[in-house]
Amino acid sequence: MSIISLPSEQTQSLLIRAGEVAVQPALVPEPGPRQVLIEVATVGICGSDVHYFDHGRIADFIVREPLVLGHEASGTIRAVGSEVTDRSVGQRVAMEPQQTCGRCVQCLSGRYNLCPDVEFFATPPIHGAFAQYVVLESHRAHPVPDSVSDEAAALIEPLSVGVWAAQKAGVQPGDRVLVTGAGPVGLLCADVARARGAAWVGVSDTNEHRLQVATDRGASQAINALAGPLTEQIEPVDVILECSGATPAVQAAFDAAAPAARIVMVGLGSPNMELPVATIQIKELVVTGTFRYANCYPAAIALAASGVVDLDGLVTAKFGLEQVAEALSASKADPHTLKPMVYPGVARI
Amino acid sequence: MSIISLPSEQTQSLLIRAGEVAVQPALVPEPGPRQVLIEVATVGICGSDVHYFDHGRIADFIVREPLVLGHEASGTIRAVGSEVTDRSVGQRVAMEPQQTCGRCVQCLSGRYNLCPDVEFFATPPIHGAFAQYVVLESHRAHPVPDSVSDEAAALIEPLSVGVWAAQKAGVQPGDRVLVTGAGPVGLLCADVARARGAAWVGVSDTNEHRLQVATDRGASQAINALAGPLTEQIEPVDVILECSGATPAVQAAFDAAAPAARIVMVGLGSPNMELPVATIQIKELVVTGTFRYANCYPAAIALAASGVVDLDGLVTAKFGLEQVAEALSASKADPHTLKPMVYPGVARI
Amino acid sequence: MSIISLPSEQTQSLLIRAGEVAVQPALVPEPGPRQVLIEVATVGICGSDVHYFDHGRIADFIVREPLVLGHEASGTIRAVGSEVTDRSVGQRVAMEPQQTCGRCVQCLSGRYNLCPDVEFFATPPIHGAFAQYVVLESHRAHPVPDSVSDEAAALIEPLSVGVWAAQKAGVQPGDRVLVTGAGPVGLLCADVARARGAAWVGVSDTNEHRLQVATDRGASQAINALAGPLTEQIEPVDVILECSGATPAVQAAFDAAAPAARIVMVGLGSPNMELPVATIQIKELVVTGTFRYANCYPAAIALAASGVVDLDGLVTAKFGLEQVAEALSASKADPHTLKPMVYPGVARI
Amino acid sequence: MSIISLPSEQTQSLLIRAGEVAVQPALVPEPGPRQVLIEVATVGICGSDVHYFDHGRIADFIVREPLVLGHEASGTIRAVGSEVTDRSVGQRVAMEPQQTCGRCVQCLSGRYNLCPDVEFFATPPIHGAFAQYVVLESHRAHPVPDSVSDEAAALIEPLSVGVWAAQKAGVQPGDRVLVTGAGPVGLLCADVARARGAAWVGVSDTNEHRLQVATDRGASQAINALAGPLTEQIEPVDVILECSGATPAVQAAFDAAAPAARIVMVGLGSPNMELPVATIQIKELVVTGTFRYANCYPAAIALAASGVVDLDGLVTAKFGLEQVAEALSASKADPHTLKPMVYPGVARI
Repeated sequence: MSIISLPSEQTQSLLIRAGEVAVQPALVPEPGPRQVLIEVATVGICGSDVHYFDHGRIADFIVREPLVLGHEASGTIRAVGSEVTDRSVGQRVAMEPQQTCGRCVQCLSGRYNLCPDVEFFATPPIHGAFAQYVVLESHRAHPVPDSVSDEAAALIEPLSVGVWAAQKAGVQPGDRVLVTGAGPVGLLCADVARARGAAWVGVSDTNEHRLQVATDRGASQAINALAGPLTEQIEPVDVILECSGATPAVQAAFDAAAPAARIVMVGLGSPNMELPVATIQIKELVVTGTFRYANCYPAAIALAASGVVDLDGLVTAKFGLEQVAEALSASKADPHTLKPMVYPGVARI
Repeated sequence: MSIISLPSEQTQSLLIRAGEVAVQPALVPEPGPRQVLIEVATVGICGSDVHYFDHGRIADFIVREPLVLGHEASGTIRAVGSEVTDRSVGQRVAMEPQQTCGRCVQCLSGRYNLCPDVEFFATPPIHGAFAQYVVLESHRAHPVPDSVSDEAAALIEPLSVGVWAAQKAGVQPGDRVLVTGAGPVGLLCADVARARGAAWVGVSDTNEHRLQVATDRGASQAINALAGPLTEQIEPVDVILECSGATPAVQAAFDAAAPAARIVMVGLGSPNMELPVATIQIKELVVTGTFRYANCYPAAIALAASGVVDLDGLVTAKFGLEQVAEALSASKADPHTLKPMVYPGVARI
Repeated sequence: MSIISLPSEQTQSLLIRAGEVAVQPALVPEPGPRQVLIEVATVGICGSDVHYFDHGRIADFIVREPLVLGHEASGTIRAVGSEVTDRSVGQRVAMEPQQTCGRCVQCLSGRYNLCPDVEFFATPPIHGAFAQYVVLESHRAHPVPDSVSDEAAALIEPLSVGVWAAQKAGVQPGDRVLVTGAGPVGLLCADVARARGAAWVGVSDTNEHRLQVATDRGASQAINALAGPLTEQIEPVDVILECSGATPAVQAAFDAAAPAARIVMVGLGSPNMELPVATIQIKELVVTGTFRYANCYPAAIALAASGVVDLDGLVTAKFGLEQVAEALSASKADPHTLKPMVYPGVARI
Repeated sequence: MSIISLPSEQTQSLLIRAGEVAVQPALVPEPGPRQVLIEVATVGICGSDVHYFDHGRIADFIVREPLVLGHEASGTIRAVGSEVTDRSVGQRVAMEPQQTCGRCVQCLSGRYNLCPDVEFFATPPIHGAFAQYVVLESHRAHPVPDSVSDEAAALIEPLSVGVWAAQKAGVQPGDRVLVTGAGPVGLLCADVARARGAAWVGVSDTNEHRLQVATDRGASQAINALAGPLTEQIEPVDVILECSGATPAVQAAFDAAAPAARIVMVGLGSPNMELPVATIQIKELVVTGTFRYANCYPAAIALAASGVVDLDGLVTAKFGLEQVAEALSASKADPHTLKPMVYPGVARI
């Protein structure tokens, strides 16, 4: 391991409690034998970060100790552990922010996202990436080519959510795909559906600005959910990627489903929803949900590198480490906000 | 076509209106060029027949004209149409009681059960099999070997429901399978799960007699849903075949699902149910439903012919054509009822 | 059926015997109840047409009676049968040139291309489309939008071959795909792989002109198979779409396959080839082949209509009906030939 | 870790060179933090053991240093590493004889059997189980219930080969399955096909004794490959599990394949074989191969525990550790040999 010339101290941003963040000094961590040390370039703000900031918890995940938030991160490898042979100092990487056991039924079956012992960045008590340096298992640090910017490398994380959702749905040429919800994840789901050759990709939302963004990014049709019943606005669809978490959107989606349609629940909303079971039966719909992603980073990086999916265009604001509270409040301050980015190496931007 | 010595008139049982059936004379139908004429041997009573008898309708399917009920039927081919080359007079057959267009997207994709123009026996206004003679497309008349009795040949129909459900769930060796609901379809779903090599097949119900039948047929565990929370009675399961249609059973089933479990909704119940969407997401469950079946008769016949699934053991009572009202009321009269059979060629038994 | 003002006679081109074609008058066929009458716009020349012209047979399919060749065809509906409700006079269509029984195991399972009773255009003794008028089952006449030219509508047929091959291979984002053989089908397979989001699409051939076309159409890498061992020219690939039919190309492809790669044999070559069975085992490769296609026209039309796949760019020459022999010899006359088109409504171009 | 009362020395059998084995003392290994120490109960002889004994190599795997053979093993856990929480001393286990990296693309995708860094028992230079004690990663030591004998627990290994092959083929009710080759793996493939509900399971071989065993175990038909062309002896089949490794058997199998049949190459034979590529195309066959197995032990144990698959019945002879040479020669000495077992804790039996 070569950590020559690396500093021993760094700075990070901690969520102290709901509504309160603080910049504090910390030690630069030392990578384990199979880990790499990464100097963080930039970190996207995810809705879950905002939720922890606002409420101090998400469901049963409670922030009991000060927590470093941020899990959509990129950076550069500055040191590698003693047994690392597949990565090298200086590589720019997109961080897959999870560590899994590799030994349970889920890991051994290729579903490591369902590992009961998963440790995921910024999910209590695991620290995230609003820090100058983080360590990561080497195989979770995915090198990116020069054509992928630091911002895009960070946003490989939400793009992976879209890659996973579209893969679960089996989107393919000829499919008509409806994406409900035009936030960053919805927009990326739409992009991936297009990248998989979907014949038609409609995006619905109630926010006209977001619908305009969807159209600008190539959606076949932007659907204002307030403009009337969904089934009067569109023809039946083969795939629904539900990214709104809004119960009415979910229920409307089932009506729009063609026979044998696949519905993937991506957006988090009410834990229980009244669903049309008879419709699932009569149309033999297939309904599933996604929990993060598995094995999606290489595909997501390829989509970004080739320009098929534009990640840089999602960035709406940039903040330094001392502005994390501001970054976490950006979406409330400006409804046009899509993806604020935090740069841990910079105090203020 | 040889219809020598066939009578020109026959007898059939008609549902006149809710609660009223009548035996009436009718013409023996003449098979079309690709149809066969079948002398009906016996017909099982399905819950849908009972529902039409009790209510005169199922959802939007309303009995407006007198309707011949019965769709679980077997018989012997007595005549074949002019273009039929794949069947011959004298063959004993299990009837797949549906006709589909063969030209729509669903038919061309192998999902003919979702054909929008499907004509299904005993679904208004299509007549069923409580009659001495019926016609059927030749390829829907599936020959059965001698080891399959007339009763078993009729019950290939509900067995196909189980074959389809277990196939949708992808039941395979090592799987732990929970069947909720121990009526005839639930019992057959359990049988098929076992036939596919499931490691464990539990069956839940609230009727102790039915649970005993499930045990006698080989269930690994019989679970009385009233005896306590499902998750305290069983370990997590990989597959749930929901055959009860009971909302509490459905909801409990989700709690019992292991990560990545597959849930197939077979039983008809409330058209809308509150479902745990967050659970679907966190465990990445796959939920689907079945609408009848497609391409299942050959597999079902093989399972019955080899003795792997015992169909004769489901028969609990036998009725002649003049006793159809009694047959349709059997389950109300005796809670031990599983499958009453009607023999259209006999007035009374 | 309205056939008002349609002529009763037409002209067609017949293959009399190997090497000899003749233009002859014929009756305009009358559509059956579920058929449409199509005035042919243009027809692409396929390698199989050339093979019949050169040899009078393909394997066991022997031209015993004069045969109308041509199966990559587009046109306009001029009349519809008495029971046709899904098509109308005046619609421009891509013709799916096959009729299947709709009743056999293959048809009922969604694999109608494997129907033993399939009748396919220009396969003896079924006539093809080098004619002014042809009839087709209405559901095989797929309407195209204005953005699809007559030529593109005809070439939906070979594009469907690519759609089917890439679907069989399950090409998806992140995949590295090698297409061996840069003829029209190989080029279209590469296009579809790209349309499905493949991370890298390499195309190999020995013809530098075709490799240049592949590059111009967007291939990630053009590989001259003569320039050295394939494994020295490329990294391992996840998918191989074999479109050359050349035994050395097939064998080289297996060496380039990554573990768990999928190999689809599209190109016809030697009926028997020595294959590396141990490699199939050690890498657990999945090898399959394609026979035409099933349910691919809608997806192919969508890919062409959106501009994702450029079909017009494949056209290299145009011929009238009296120039069919010339059209069938074009590839021998000019090695740059990709897709000659025949216009049955025109004598000479 | 409790290793109280464990001996520090043990005895093992080493393959010195082709044809020569020797019993030698060795240290009892100490389990790593996540490993368990297993006292070996019994070990089945696999064809690969015999091949190493006869030739000192298999393909590129060469025995350069003395090697402990044997990889079909069962035993009892005698000590557990410091971090092991999922296993305990005294548990009887079936050993899954492989260690994989858990970090490569193959491992992360659930295909750990294709891990390039796999370490597999009795594959040079990794020692196997002809020893009194071995260590294993805890999650590869699969507990077995009392209903599974030591011999059956050892033979979970070849049963897993059958589970994997039948799973790759997707055997399900209604399928007609042909197993070519009635050695232990072929017999177990047939058993698993039956356990998955196959409608018909035929087994072919040239050894009448083995065919009789296949029949006794429940094969639908025993086929002597010398009795005439396969296609004259059987109807087309949906699945072929090739376990003979014999080129003529492989080639004949393709002729017997129904359209869309799945062919899984299990048996090792000639590394290259002439295969009917045109048949693969015309019938759209799916051909794949198996390399060991992944995630199959739990299913295999369940099949053995329930009695669905009889493993004890395969055992044909028992040997002590000093009789390993004899055990490795058993199949040459007696053509009725199926599975000789070695008991490392006993000198001679």
